[in-house]
Amino acid sequence: MERSTGFRIDELAARFGLERRGDGMRVIRGVASLAKAQDDQLAFLANPRYAADLPKTRAGAVVLRAEHAPACPVPALIAKDPYLAFARIAVLFERAPAPAAGVHPTAVIASGARIDPAASIGACCVIEDGAVVEAGAVLGPHCIVGPGCTVGAQSRLVARVTLVTRVRLGKRVLVHAGAVLGSDGFGIARGEDGWVKVPQLGGVRVGDDCEIGANTTIDRGALDDTVLEEDVRLDNQIQIAHNVVIGAHTALAGCSAVAGSARIGRDCLIGGGAGVLGHLEIADRVTITAMSLVTHSIREPGTYSSGAPLEENRRWRRNTARIRQLDDMARRLAALEGRAPHKERNDE
Amino acid sequence: MERSTGFRIDELAARFGLERRGDGMRVIRGVASLAKAQDDQLAFLANPRYAADLPKTRAGAVVLRAEHAPACPVPALIAKDPYLAFARIAVLFERAPAPAAGVHPTAVIASGARIDPAASIGACCVIEDGAVVEAGAVLGPHCIVGPGCTVGAQSRLVARVTLVTRVRLGKRVLVHAGAVLGSDGFGIARGEDGWVKVPQLGGVRVGDDCEIGANTTIDRGALDDTVLEEDVRLDNQIQIAHNVVIGAHTALAGCSAVAGSARIGRDCLIGGGAGVLGHLEIADRVTITAMSLVTHSIREPGTYSSGAPLEENRRWRRNTARIRQLDDMARRLAALEGRAPHKERNDE
Amino acid sequence: MERSTGFRIDELAARFGLERRGDGMRVIRGVASLAKAQDDQLAFLANPRYAADLPKTRAGAVVLRAEHAPACPVPALIAKDPYLAFARIAVLFERAPAPAAGVHPTAVIASGARIDPAASIGACCVIEDGAVVEAGAVLGPHCIVGPGCTVGAQSRLVARVTLVTRVRLGKRVLVHAGAVLGSDGFGIARGEDGWVKVPQLGGVRVGDDCEIGANTTIDRGALDDTVLEEDVRLDNQIQIAHNVVIGAHTALAGCSAVAGSARIGRDCLIGGGAGVLGHLEIADRVTITAMSLVTHSIREPGTYSSGAPLEENRRWRRNTARIRQLDDMARRLAALEGRAPHKERNDE
Repeated sequence: MERSTGFRIDELAARFGLERRGDGMRVIRGVASLAKAQDDQLAFLANPRYAADLPKTRAGAVVLRAEHAPACPVPALIAKDPYLAFARIAVLFERAPAPAAGVHPTAVIASGARIDPAASIGACCVIEDGAVVEAGAVLGPHCIVGPGCTVGAQSRLVARVTLVTRVRLGKRVLVHAGAVLGSDGFGIARGEDGWVKVPQLGGVRVGDDCEIGANTTIDRGALDDTVLEEDVRLDNQIQIAHNVVIGAHTALAGCSAVAGSARIGRDCLIGGGAGVLGHLEIADRVTITAMSLVTHSIREPGTYSSGAPLEENRRWRRNTARIRQLDDMARRLAALEGRAPHKERNDE
Repeated sequence: MERSTGFRIDELAARFGLERRGDGMRVIRGVASLAKAQDDQLAFLANPRYAADLPKTRAGAVVLRAEHAPACPVPALIAKDPYLAFARIAVLFERAPAPAAGVHPTAVIASGARIDPAASIGACCVIEDGAVVEAGAVLGPHCIVGPGCTVGAQSRLVARVTLVTRVRLGKRVLVHAGAVLGSDGFGIARGEDGWVKVPQLGGVRVGDDCEIGANTTIDRGALDDTVLEEDVRLDNQIQIAHNVVIGAHTALAGCSAVAGSARIGRDCLIGGGAGVLGHLEIADRVTITAMSLVTHSIREPGTYSSGAPLEENRRWRRNTARIRQLDDMARRLAALEGRAPHKERNDE
Repeated sequence: MERSTGFRIDELAARFGLERRGDGMRVIRGVASLAKAQDDQLAFLANPRYAADLPKTRAGAVVLRAEHAPACPVPALIAKDPYLAFARIAVLFERAPAPAAGVHPTAVIASGARIDPAASIGACCVIEDGAVVEAGAVLGPHCIVGPGCTVGAQSRLVARVTLVTRVRLGKRVLVHAGAVLGSDGFGIARGEDGWVKVPQLGGVRVGDDCEIGANTTIDRGALDDTVLEEDVRLDNQIQIAHNVVIGAHTALAGCSAVAGSARIGRDCLIGGGAGVLGHLEIADRVTITAMSLVTHSIREPGTYSSGAPLEENRRWRRNTARIRQLDDMARRLAALEGRAPHKERNDE
């Protein structure tokens, strides 16, 4: 769908250090899926689920692992990690024009805000006193940068991003539409007559190269800051509560949520819809599968899960009703075995 | 609560093809719940949970199934599906004034945007180069229509809707406040030094008559488009990842989420908070109950569920701890039965 | 991090009715965590998880329970509920300047809107016909107040809050960025050719002193109103469907969701990511733990849970597969015991 003047296949092979199979002279002018690519487009095959599309492809070339090359009817570029190689090549064909530096006339800039002349501020943005926008930063329309907030160099707020209070973004941070960073943490203490709000006096620190998805929320800390280290990747509609710390290179999939003061290590993967309770610690290199709930600290790298299997509803009703009898069943089983209810053999 | 000049009960019966019981001359000027309706208001009874409100109702008339008519103390309109009949009648009493065509003076319209003179563009909207707004479309305040986006004829963006890039809405599409369509899909590939972003070069296609809830997010495709066929209904805070395809007439309840490249059939119902993993297929006419996780493709129509039952917490602790022993218990049970651990008899 | 001219420790003790241990003359100029507080800052110890930080603290004083006083190396203020006492003291050190009354020149105010001269309306706000903003209310930038909406006295919409239609906020209500109140409830009825939208003619009523989190959504009622009684506290990304009623002082944690027409009592606590199905009732003083699904009405106060335990993935796969055999296992167990499948002894 995106076209450019193009690159020859052998140019791409040389530029990205990939082995080439087949004709190197064809010109690639865009990228597309295996099933839809035309003869001037590059496709890729990473997930074996889509291997059936390979023999029929009309792509100009395909990035794939060596094992798939024999089945490829068109020129191939061999990569150990075809998805990664494709990601790097595809950037050549993505042509979002960089907006010009300067401040849109409808933007509202407080006198105490500091905006680098090499930054771009879109329509209807509001930059408040004490805010800083560094060189090369791009704010799309309708962004709000509140007091004590900094948008680091080369960072981009796509559109309608709100930085409420004391949010410091590093360099090259990308924030998608509707995200809210630096809102009050959910701190309430129960008094005699009702809830008493606990002032939220901390901020949010976001490291270099982080990405934050659409409508994701990150609260500011109660006292210390909420922290994302560098290269943390958050998908859409994620909730990060106050004083959470997330280690470098950790990625969270959509709709996951982390409760207050939890600390997640580096290089973790948190699945979609998963939850992490407050005040826990998760070690480095931990994977949590989708919709699992982390109820205790995890000290060892590895993959962890919770949740029951999907079943046809009537069968599920029968089986799930038995969960309520499980403790009873365990005791009866032990009694049949002729011994007292034993401690679990099989526990984590 | 809403009043109009009114319709006689016999007029309503004739207009909507419903059988009438009791006085047809009373005038109905609005709609209300069974419990609160006054004698110039129409109520309905669909969910038997509310049948106890019927004998006490003071409504002017009630839409209900024939079986409930004998218990109705006021005139009745008989319908096979009272909720559906009520929905059609209630439209008569909903009077949101249609905003005038034209562009609000505070809206920011790029020179390369194309806006039909019969469209209405609200305060502070931002319409970017390459965007199209067709005749009869209504954009409430603070909407953003990005490059390559089209708002089809008679569609309505209620307020503060963001169409980021390459989003094409069909006709009569209704999008609620805070929704974000066309943001980057969550495509990242792991390199040696950290994550590499995969360019998201596709778009979003939304069919005619779709409805999209408040703060819902729909990412644009990586290569091909993310697609909602016609008459798809999404509630609030739903997350639709890149390259998902959702079939016509399928409805998703609030906070559900669909991961990348999943394909959901036509006429499906996805319950609140449910999740669908990526790259799966769900057949037509499948119902998924609330907070279930779909972990494998579903080939047959029907209702599917996962999840454990709600219990009083102490009991739950005892039973749920036993889940960790289940495999052990199954083996011990088989041993007692005098045979090796058997394969499940009872599996899906 | 926040500094003020300060308060002597004995002043704080007197003002908040707390017993003091140690030097009362030291001046406190801010608040900080136990681990980071300096000698002019106040810290607190409530959660025993952090007791290890106490002996090393360099805080000017610590609010704590009497039992922790002996281990405190610095002056202490004794409180039964240190978190509550700290919340009240910390307000002294939170200095967000109150914005001046008046309407920002970029705000768009309809001629039929009524705005008290003692209210403050921020940049790019849109106040529509029939809206009312009372004295002392503060609207940050980019808020939208739609027709039939009222913002009560002293209420605050932080930024980018949308009140769509017929939303009445009480006094001192705090709404965070990105929240949407009063959008259409998800009412659809299935007709022969597709979905028919059910008009949503009710509103939303929010009682005094409520707090509503970032990107939370509250739909307006179909006929009657959706209601939050006074002092209800909602965290971020919560979904409240049409006609829900939530009792006074109830708090919901992030990402929880309540389906249509459910009624939740007073003084309840709903954990993060928990779900409540529609048309249910939950009694007063009920706690629901995180990510539980409430599938039936709860009549008795207490704590309720659902969900399976987190396990290392391989072990989880083995155990969770057995859930599909549970009904079969129960029958086989009963057979071994020499009797017919029995009714559960152990059920709720």
